[in-house]
Amino acid sequence: MLPTVEWQGDVVVMVDQRKLPAQEVYVRCRSAAEVAKAIRTMVIRGAPAIGVAAAMGLALGVRKSTAKGTRQLTVEFNKMCDVMAATRPTAVNLFWAVNRMKHAFAVGAQAGESPAELARRLEDEARHIHDEDVESCRAMGAYGAALVPEGARILTHCNAGALATAGYGSALGVVRAAAEQGKRIAVFADETRPFLQGARLTAWELLRDGIETTVITESMAGPIMRAGDVDLVVVGADRIAANGDVANKIGTYTVAVLAHEHQLPFYVAAPVSTIDLDTPDGDGIPIEERDAREVTHFRGLQVTPDGAGIRNPAFDVTPHRYVTAIITERGVCRPPYTESLAAAVRGAATPC
Amino acid sequence: MLPTVEWQGDVVVMVDQRKLPAQEVYVRCRSAAEVAKAIRTMVIRGAPAIGVAAAMGLALGVRKSTAKGTRQLTVEFNKMCDVMAATRPTAVNLFWAVNRMKHAFAVGAQAGESPAELARRLEDEARHIHDEDVESCRAMGAYGAALVPEGARILTHCNAGALATAGYGSALGVVRAAAEQGKRIAVFADETRPFLQGARLTAWELLRDGIETTVITESMAGPIMRAGDVDLVVVGADRIAANGDVANKIGTYTVAVLAHEHQLPFYVAAPVSTIDLDTPDGDGIPIEERDAREVTHFRGLQVTPDGAGIRNPAFDVTPHRYVTAIITERGVCRPPYTESLAAAVRGAATPC
Repeated sequence: MLPTVEWQGDVVVMVDQRKLPAQEVYVRCRSAAEVAKAIRTMVIRGAPAIGVAAAMGLALGVRKSTAKGTRQLTVEFNKMCDVMAATRPTAVNLFWAVNRMKHAFAVGAQAGESPAELARRLEDEARHIHDEDVESCRAMGAYGAALVPEGARILTHCNAGALATAGYGSALGVVRAAAEQGKRIAVFADETRPFLQGARLTAWELLRDGIETTVITESMAGPIMRAGDVDLVVVGADRIAANGDVANKIGTYTVAVLAHEHQLPFYVAAPVSTIDLDTPDGDGIPIEERDAREVTHFRGLQVTPDGAGIRNPAFDVTPHRYVTAIITERGVCRPPYTESLAAAVRGAATPC
Repeated sequence: MLPTVEWQGDVVVMVDQRKLPAQEVYVRCRSAAEVAKAIRTMVIRGAPAIGVAAAMGLALGVRKSTAKGTRQLTVEFNKMCDVMAATRPTAVNLFWAVNRMKHAFAVGAQAGESPAELARRLEDEARHIHDEDVESCRAMGAYGAALVPEGARILTHCNAGALATAGYGSALGVVRAAAEQGKRIAVFADETRPFLQGARLTAWELLRDGIETTVITESMAGPIMRAGDVDLVVVGADRIAANGDVANKIGTYTVAVLAHEHQLPFYVAAPVSTIDLDTPDGDGIPIEERDAREVTHFRGLQVTPDGAGIRNPAFDVTPHRYVTAIITERGVCRPPYTESLAAAVRGAATPC
């Protein structure tokens, strides 16, 4: 399995996703601050992977702390949590993971644990989050694969794969599970401007697994659907509001509109940690605007003229009416999402 | 005005559009074959500009010929026409221009003109085609500007500007004319993968004219429309079928679907030489599939992994039901297009 993010002794190791597939370079983070920087600069990306990395970063920070006692460690830990939570605003898994680590810390502190004991507790919690994420992906895969017909040609956007999770993938977990069941499938991967996660990451990891993958520019998805060459769409999510509105990589909304126009199923695969019941609808999801340079430059080469305005929202919101179903590790949620998503979060085995 | 393509003595000069805006390099073509190569390799692109360049290339070929008499010249000329017509399959203006040059040649030959006289006749015809194209753009601009409200935020795709025509532009002619009328307008330019005509060419030429331009990736058009930040769309065309189906740069169909979804007007601006009454509908328009390397590489750097399938259709077809109106130099055509387009081709001053 791909080492998206791993705990190795007292470093957190991750493959530098900015450099794939041309180079397979590993970044070794030795502090919480280094993990925060890796998240902010997109060494690692993908909502579930960000959550796992943040958890490992906080465990690492506590382990490396030279705080004299639990009181001082608590102050340091809270600062680390603030830094980690400020890295990226849209993926709710980040805040979910930070809160889970805060809870673990509070439990340990309340029990009078020493800094060393707290460090072990947080390492255990981070490992749990990692392992649960892989299990979640496998479960999503099993539920999702049932929705994939034999011979399906599947379009996906961005990378919701092993690289976006602790392993196996959410949307690509569905693809992998269908392939493991022996279904002949083929994938169209939107290249996904400006960061090219589809061209660089999705194609790379699917081809490693021997799954037929064709890279297209976003502009080709519509004509390919119109030609009848796509059977279904499956994407990941960075945050799902209580009503089923889905924030995901910029371009997802367009794919959803196109799927709707061509009467194709549009599926979202995401763990329940991506569901944010505190946000009633998509209007409440903060959308990160990233550096204009991601659009104006390509590996250091400027493509736009000086003086041009630039927009670079990293995500968009797909209203729930375009979403056929949301595949979670606890089952497949269908409209009305206010009910099925709440049931999934509560832990219902099969929300619909 | 930008020297998209110019006749200078015995060379045809064009700015190398592959290198803009980073470098302003001029390519000097000294033969019909060199002009054909420039069209094929996209030194020059844009349906009307291709037509003008092809006409100049044929005139140049006849001028440079060492044929002993009209009979030998006719054989050579027909070969040149075949080479020129084989450069690119979708833009009908290419075939229109080649046919017009063939007709001029036939008239001269029938009148018993010498090779030198034929050369002059073809030069005159090429110049006419060039000058008419600029006039057409001005007329399209005038008709189209009436459709642009004060304060309009206009989204365009690819480059249907001065660089895609002999000057002034078709879709961007509409933008320019509205600006010249003193309307405050702002343009969103889709960057237009894989060739980046929007980021590189549209932004460059509009900013030269002082028109506010914001570059976005294709994936941002939908969310920006959904946010209410776009008032209308205007694009060019490479071929318009008799029923109003429009072949244009890949990605145009998606923009049309999005405009439809957001109830925004979707206008096409193109000279009547782009209307192909011999092709009943969009299914009959050949779509060029270009080299995969345009998608897999970016200025020599590979972005996709080895082994990935690649699609690279250069155009798509937008069914006429998504097209609000087609702006020509003879007036604004509206549905039913079978009638209004035929009237425009016949020469009606105001087809609708």
